[in-house]
Amino acid sequence: LSLSDIARAAGVSLTTASRALNNAYGIAPATREKVLATARRLDYVVSPDAVRLARGGTRRVALVVPHIDRWFFGAMVAGVEDILAKADVDLLLYHVGGSDDRRSFFTHLPARRKVDAVIVVAFPVGEAERDRLALMGVSIVAAGGQSVEYPYVCIDDYRAGRQAVDHLVELGHRRIAMIAAHDPDQPGWPARSGRSEAYVHALAEIGVPLRNELIRDVNWGGTNAATAMDDILDGGDPPTAVYAHSDELALGVLGSLRRHGLRVPQDVSVVGIDDHPHAGLVDLTTVRQPVREQGAIAARLVLDELDGTDTASVDGGGGSAAVTVHTTLVVRGTTSPPVEHTEIAADRVSRP
Amino acid sequence: LSLSDIARAAGVSLTTASRALNNAYGIAPATREKVLATARRLDYVVSPDAVRLARGGTRRVALVVPHIDRWFFGAMVAGVEDILAKADVDLLLYHVGGSDDRRSFFTHLPARRKVDAVIVVAFPVGEAERDRLALMGVSIVAAGGQSVEYPYVCIDDYRAGRQAVDHLVELGHRRIAMIAAHDPDQPGWPARSGRSEAYVHALAEIGVPLRNELIRDVNWGGTNAATAMDDILDGGDPPTAVYAHSDELALGVLGSLRRHGLRVPQDVSVVGIDDHPHAGLVDLTTVRQPVREQGAIAARLVLDELDGTDTASVDGGGGSAAVTVHTTLVVRGTTSPPVEHTEIAADRVSRP
Repeated sequence: LSLSDIARAAGVSLTTASRALNNAYGIAPATREKVLATARRLDYVVSPDAVRLARGGTRRVALVVPHIDRWFFGAMVAGVEDILAKADVDLLLYHVGGSDDRRSFFTHLPARRKVDAVIVVAFPVGEAERDRLALMGVSIVAAGGQSVEYPYVCIDDYRAGRQAVDHLVELGHRRIAMIAAHDPDQPGWPARSGRSEAYVHALAEIGVPLRNELIRDVNWGGTNAATAMDDILDGGDPPTAVYAHSDELALGVLGSLRRHGLRVPQDVSVVGIDDHPHAGLVDLTTVRQPVREQGAIAARLVLDELDGTDTASVDGGGGSAAVTVHTTLVVRGTTSPPVEHTEIAADRVSRP
Repeated sequence: LSLSDIARAAGVSLTTASRALNNAYGIAPATREKVLATARRLDYVVSPDAVRLARGGTRRVALVVPHIDRWFFGAMVAGVEDILAKADVDLLLYHVGGSDDRRSFFTHLPARRKVDAVIVVAFPVGEAERDRLALMGVSIVAAGGQSVEYPYVCIDDYRAGRQAVDHLVELGHRRIAMIAAHDPDQPGWPARSGRSEAYVHALAEIGVPLRNELIRDVNWGGTNAATAMDDILDGGDPPTAVYAHSDELALGVLGSLRRHGLRVPQDVSVVGIDDHPHAGLVDLTTVRQPVREQGAIAARLVLDELDGTDTASVDGGGGSAAVTVHTTLVVRGTTSPPVEHTEIAADRVSRP
């Protein structure tokens, strides 16, 4: 009989079950009683280690973030730190680049019990790792990604993608390329696939078939996007528009187009997602997501967990808080209607 | 009689004096004896609070960083975290945007004694704050900035500036604009002034007088640089080249030139400093600084302090470790010799 069994039987999250059994902070009296009753009914024995570890707060939160030198992650950290600092909660930063780092982080953290909660930025936490943290009474909150297992804040990636692609479609574009992004260290992460689905659905709705020669899936980073765009252009018959999964990819696309002698937006329109601070500098049309705000919301979700707002009792049945922030299309100078005769654009492609 | 007096009389840093008196880790026996002898000679009384606080390590280091959502600061954090994580030292992150935040941070930190050391990224620590930290045995290390008072790692800003400006001069440019950066929250910070001095000296060496209409001093950020460049161009008679204190400023300059219908580099050359990941995407000539490496070196300086390499005994006389990392000119597509008749460029200026 495991703690998970108790949690399931009591209809609460693992974290809540652990806290209730360990008499820790942050549990509504009714919820605690329900968990204790379930544990008694099932003859569950609490391990002394778990009691020792879960009781009491460190007033520290771990922020686990890949790629801290990218704007998205830095802005997320700024938002988290701002709220935690005001609550006098310290932030332990863990920069985990690859999936090995991430595994190592989750293997070592619980044994040391340095924090009350973990905020993961834009990557998923596996089941075994969730269980370890829950057993110790360490909460998890996701920023910039979704989970049914713990509270999260993110954008609606499908909607953001539709805002970008629909803008191109409404301008009259039909031959639209997509530079999709993936992170090789998190192959199963679903957050980005919404952005690809948006492209597939938008084209399907107007009866435009998908063309493999116009779709590239690259690792994050503008340089990779530039290479992918080079590849598409070298195939001849360029698209009239490009949808990039992020502004950093779009910056790479703009570089590739410039080297090929194609004008933006006269020959090719480009749209990204993020509203990176550099998007305005290159006059990039994009879909803005409020990143710092997501960080602040993630921090508030953590504080709710620590200060006793029991999310299980709010949502019922062990459900978690979920916040989706809005995205906005920002039309700038890199998008316009396609030229009448796309052959003209094709003629202008020069080889750099 | 203060601890500073003891430190001065013993010829060691405040930190070393505090540690020696508090019998803390990280002090060579000979140094400790020297400090203790000095204290005895001067009848210095150690406060019990200081003893309690300074003794023993937390194995935590505070990283105090402004503007975490900018690449430079994020890369610095990544470099620090990598080394500290390997040494099993935790990183408490404090994001301090303005000078009020910074004051507040230093006022609150020592009383709580949460860390063994503080790494400050690219801003100075005042004397009163240094004394407070030293009294508690908390070391300071600067990353991306200089100090005679504590160990640091940085680039040679003057040299980096000369690499940029000399490149323009060697190409034949004489009418060179400068977009200088300052941070309104740290008016006295000398790090950036080396970059301005480089411009002044380089022009003086070739007998070119400074022209106020070609120099702008702006707050960090590409948008401000774009506005400053607009202002220079709207004055008529554009420069043949622009030296920007950072790549982010240079990106703003490129946007302004594009909006004014000026071609880069045919009409105007542009050079920055940093080698920001986006510099390559826009084919920007720049001076590369290894930022992540500076973060790693700062972390090693901290570990040296904590693990007992007494910098005072290395350098003698209370001096601190100082590491200057090299910068490299990276010539890309935004610089070329000026056109023969600069009037041509002037004619081409359009008003956006």
